[in-house]
Amino acid sequence: MKRINLILSCCTVLGCLFLGGSAQAQQAKQPNIVVFFVDDLGWQDISEPFYKEVTPINRKFHTPHLEALAKEATKFTNAYATPVCTPSRVSMLTGLNAAHHKVTNWTHPTANKPTDNPDDMLTPPDWNINGMSPDPNVPHTVYATPFPQILKDNGYYTIHIGKAHWGSAGTPGASPLNLGFMVNIAGHSAGHPQSYYGEENYGNMPGKASHQAVPDLMEYHGRDTFLTEALTLEAIKTLKEPIKRKEPFFLNFSNYAVHVPIMPDPRFVQKYLDKGLDPVEAGYASLVEGFDKSIGDIVQFLKDNGQYENTVIIFLSDNGGLSRNPQRSGPDHTQNLPLRAGKGSVYEGGIRVPLLIKNANNHMARSTESPVIVEDLFPTILELAGIQDYPLVQKTIDGQSLVSLIDGKQDNSWNSRNLVWNIPNKWIVQDGPGINFFSAIRQGDYKLVYDMKNQKLELYNLRDDIGETKDIAKQHKKKVKELSNLLTERFKAWDAQLPTYKATGKKVPYPNELN
Amino acid sequence: MKRINLILSCCTVLGCLFLGGSAQAQQAKQPNIVVFFVDDLGWQDISEPFYKEVTPINRKFHTPHLEALAKEATKFTNAYATPVCTPSRVSMLTGLNAAHHKVTNWTHPTANKPTDNPDDMLTPPDWNINGMSPDPNVPHTVYATPFPQILKDNGYYTIHIGKAHWGSAGTPGASPLNLGFMVNIAGHSAGHPQSYYGEENYGNMPGKASHQAVPDLMEYHGRDTFLTEALTLEAIKTLKEPIKRKEPFFLNFSNYAVHVPIMPDPRFVQKYLDKGLDPVEAGYASLVEGFDKSIGDIVQFLKDNGQYENTVIIFLSDNGGLSRNPQRSGPDHTQNLPLRAGKGSVYEGGIRVPLLIKNANNHMARSTESPVIVEDLFPTILELAGIQDYPLVQKTIDGQSLVSLIDGKQDNSWNSRNLVWNIPNKWIVQDGPGINFFSAIRQGDYKLVYDMKNQKLELYNLRDDIGETKDIAKQHKKKVKELSNLLTERFKAWDAQLPTYKATGKKVPYPNELN
Repeated sequence: MKRINLILSCCTVLGCLFLGGSAQAQQAKQPNIVVFFVDDLGWQDISEPFYKEVTPINRKFHTPHLEALAKEATKFTNAYATPVCTPSRVSMLTGLNAAHHKVTNWTHPTANKPTDNPDDMLTPPDWNINGMSPDPNVPHTVYATPFPQILKDNGYYTIHIGKAHWGSAGTPGASPLNLGFMVNIAGHSAGHPQSYYGEENYGNMPGKASHQAVPDLMEYHGRDTFLTEALTLEAIKTLKEPIKRKEPFFLNFSNYAVHVPIMPDPRFVQKYLDKGLDPVEAGYASLVEGFDKSIGDIVQFLKDNGQYENTVIIFLSDNGGLSRNPQRSGPDHTQNLPLRAGKGSVYEGGIRVPLLIKNANNHMARSTESPVIVEDLFPTILELAGIQDYPLVQKTIDGQSLVSLIDGKQDNSWNSRNLVWNIPNKWIVQDGPGINFFSAIRQGDYKLVYDMKNQKLELYNLRDDIGETKDIAKQHKKKVKELSNLLTERFKAWDAQLPTYKATGKKVPYPNELN
Repeated sequence: MKRINLILSCCTVLGCLFLGGSAQAQQAKQPNIVVFFVDDLGWQDISEPFYKEVTPINRKFHTPHLEALAKEATKFTNAYATPVCTPSRVSMLTGLNAAHHKVTNWTHPTANKPTDNPDDMLTPPDWNINGMSPDPNVPHTVYATPFPQILKDNGYYTIHIGKAHWGSAGTPGASPLNLGFMVNIAGHSAGHPQSYYGEENYGNMPGKASHQAVPDLMEYHGRDTFLTEALTLEAIKTLKEPIKRKEPFFLNFSNYAVHVPIMPDPRFVQKYLDKGLDPVEAGYASLVEGFDKSIGDIVQFLKDNGQYENTVIIFLSDNGGLSRNPQRSGPDHTQNLPLRAGKGSVYEGGIRVPLLIKNANNHMARSTESPVIVEDLFPTILELAGIQDYPLVQKTIDGQSLVSLIDGKQDNSWNSRNLVWNIPNKWIVQDGPGINFFSAIRQGDYKLVYDMKNQKLELYNLRDDIGETKDIAKQHKKKVKELSNLLTERFKAWDAQLPTYKATGKKVPYPNELN
C-alpha cells in the first residue's frame, strides 16, 4: 500500500511525467535515433543521386536500401563534412567546427604522435593530435561534452558499433565508453580495419596484429563473416536490450566500410566484376553494397520490432571519396567527378557528402539545398530527442539544428550562414588539389579557397560550377574580400590554427591579409 | 489524462508490481550483486584465513580489504571450484557441474582446438572444447542459459569486467555480450593477459600481440596503469550508469590477477621484497594485494554512492593456486600446504577456494563448514535477486542455493550432498598428484579420488586429514563402495565422459567397476 500511495502522490505532483524514472517517462516522447556514419564514402558512391541528376558514378553502385530510405527522408544535397575522418567525427560528437576544436587531421592510434607528413615550406601548428577528451587537462585534446553523454544522461540507451577514431590510445577519447556510450563494439583508436575478413580474425592474428586489428568480434574469428555483416549482427543483438527495456536508444553505427584496405565483400563482388568493373572498383562497390545491406537489415529489424516509426535515421559519410590510385582505379582525382578531387581536399570532392535524415513519424521525401555541415548533427539530434537544457563544457556549439529543414521549413537564412574548413596540416606527401595547407569558406553559392602555400585565394560559384573549374576571384574581388574577411573573422573568433613558415617561424597570413 | 488512467488501471490489476517496467518496479526489492572472481588464487593466498588457524601462507599476503569484507560476510571454509578455470567459469554461469556440462578442461582462445596434452595410455573424450554457448547447435559446446541473461531479463544492468574465458573465438561464447552481459570490458576468449603493463599495451603491440592481448583498454595504453587498476577504474566508471538510472546491477568483476605471467605490480612489490620474499613470490604477492585494493576501491565506491548496504558481494577464486616451479617458487606442489597439490589437481590444493558472501542488509560475520561448490552460485544469485521463475534451456541445474547458509541456517542436509569432479583430460604433460585423468567425490568428511590411469581408488577423511596424506581406502571398504557407487551414479545420470584406452579404444571403467 505504501508503494501505491507513493506513486499516486507522485502522479499528483508531477502529472506522471517522471513516473517510473526518466527513461520510462521520456520514452513516450523520445524517438530512437540511429546514425549510419559511413567511412570514406564519396558523394555519388551510392545509387541514390544527390546531384541534380543521376550520374555515371551513381550508376556504378547498387544501394537499394538507401534508395528506400531516401523516399521517407529529407535529402540534403549540399551537406558537408571535413576532408578526413577524425575531424568530422569530433565535429559530430562535439558540435564544434574543426577549425574550432583543432582536431584538424586524423589522429594516430597511439598518443602524442602527429600524423602530418614532412613539408619543406610549412610546419603544422600544435593541433589536437590526440583527438577529443571528455576529461579536462588531457594534453593535445579538445575537452568537450559529447552529445551521446547527454542522451545517456536523459535516459537513452547509447550504443556505438564500428569505427570510433575519436582519440588516441593512451587518452580517454580512445574508448567510446568514455564518450557517452554504454555499449561499444569494435570501436577504438584506429581509423580502419586491418582486415575485413573473419577468416583473418579482422587482423587479430598472433604476431601479425597491427593497431588496426578490429577488437571485440571474437565470435566471428575464423569464420567467413565479413566485417560489415559481423557489425550488423552485433548491432541487431544489442538493440534488443533497449527495446525490451522500453528505453529510447541511440545507435551510432559507424561501419568500417568503405575505408581502405579495399577488400572485396564476397557476397556482392561478383556482380560488379560481371558488370565489367576492374577488381579494385568491383571490390569498392561490394563494400558499398555491403553497408547498404547493413542499413537494410537494421531498418528491417526496426520494422519487425515496431520501432521504425519512432526512429530517426540519419545517414552520412565522414568525408569525400578517396581519389587516389592505386587504392582506387583510374587517374588520381577523377573518382568523384564532376566534383573536384577527393578525400583530404577542401574542394567539393573531399568534403561534400550524402546526408539523409528520416524523422520519426514523418515519412515524406523532401530535399533541401541549404548548406549544412556535420557539426549540425549535434543540436539536431538533441532537438529531435526533445532535450533542451544540457550542461556543456564547450562554451558554445557551432552547429545549427536542422530540424526546421527536416520539417520542410525553408528559409533564406541558411544561405547567409557560412561554413568553414581549415586544414593547417600535411595529410599526404603529395600536395593538392586542395590537399595540405588549405582552408575554405562557403556562403550561399560562393566558396572561397585559401591555398596557404601558394598564398592564393580562389573563388567559385558552386551553383554554376560545382566542379570548381573556374576560379572567378579576379572577376569578383568584392566577394573575395567579403569572404576572406568572414573567414578571418571566424578564424580569430575560434583561435583557429595556421601553419608557420619553416624559414621564419612566422604564421602564414590570415586570408584577409593577402594582397 | 489517458496516461494517468492507464497507470491507475495498471495499478489495480497488477498491484503496481510491474508499473513502470520491470527494472523500475523490481529495483526497490532487488539488491545489486557484485562477484569478485579471482583467477588462480590459492585457498590461503590472502591474509584472511579459511583454515582453522592463520597459516604461514596467510601471513605472506596482505589483503586488508578482504579482511574487512569477511567481517560482514559468511565465510565458506569448505568451498570448491574445479581444478582449472574454464570449467569453473562455465559451472558458475550455467549452474551445472563440470562433469555434466562437459567443459572439463580450459578452452583454447580459438575454436575447435583441444587443449589436452598427448598421453601414451589414454585418449580424452570428445569434451566441449569450445566452452559454453547461449545458442544451440554450436559444435563442442554446452548449450545453456547463463544466469546473467536471466538477471538482465529481470531488469538488472549486467556488467562483465576482466577475464571471461567462457568460450573459444569463433563461437558465441567468446563474447560476454552473448552471455547476458550488457557491458563487457576486457573479456574475451583467452584465459590470461599477455601483459599486465599499460606500458606494453597489455600485449597489444603491433607485430607482437598474441591471442592473450587484453582488449578494450586503449585509454591506458602506453601509460603506467597496471591491468588490475585499469579494470578497477573501468568498473567504477561503468557502475555509475545503473546507479544513475536507479537500476539494480550485476557486476562480474573477474580480475586477470593472479594468473601467470606473474608480473610484479609496481605499487606493491617492494614491500614483499623487503619482507624477504624472492622476486617470483613477491611478484605474486603484489598481484594479490593489487586485486585486494581493487575490491577495496569498489567497496568504497559503493559506500560513497549509498549502494553498499543493498549490494550482495561474493568473493571467490576459480581454482586452487598454481603449485609448479618456475611459475611459482619452491618445490612443486608445496605452495598450498597443508593442502595437497595445486591448480589442475583434484586434491584439495587444486579445488578448494576461498568464498565469502556478504548479503545485502545483513552484515554479520558467519562461518560455515558446509561443502559448497561454484555452480551453487547460479541459484544463490538468482534467489538473492528475488527471481523465482525463469526459463532455462538446461533441463536442471546441479547447484544448490546457499541462501539458507548465508542466513545462518545450518542443517545437516549439506553433509549428505555430494560434490563431484571429473577430469578425463590431460591438462599438463607431467601427471599427478591428482592431475590428469582423475575424478573425485566428496560427501560429508569423506572424499574418494579415482585415479583413472592407475585404476586406483583413494579415500580420505578431510576432517582428520585435510592434506590427503593418509589413504584410508583399505580401512573403509564400505565407504569406498558407497562413494564409488554414488560417483558412478552421478556420472551415469549426467552422461559424464571418461577417457578411452589408446590400446583398446575402450573407456576406462566407472569407479564402481574397480575391484
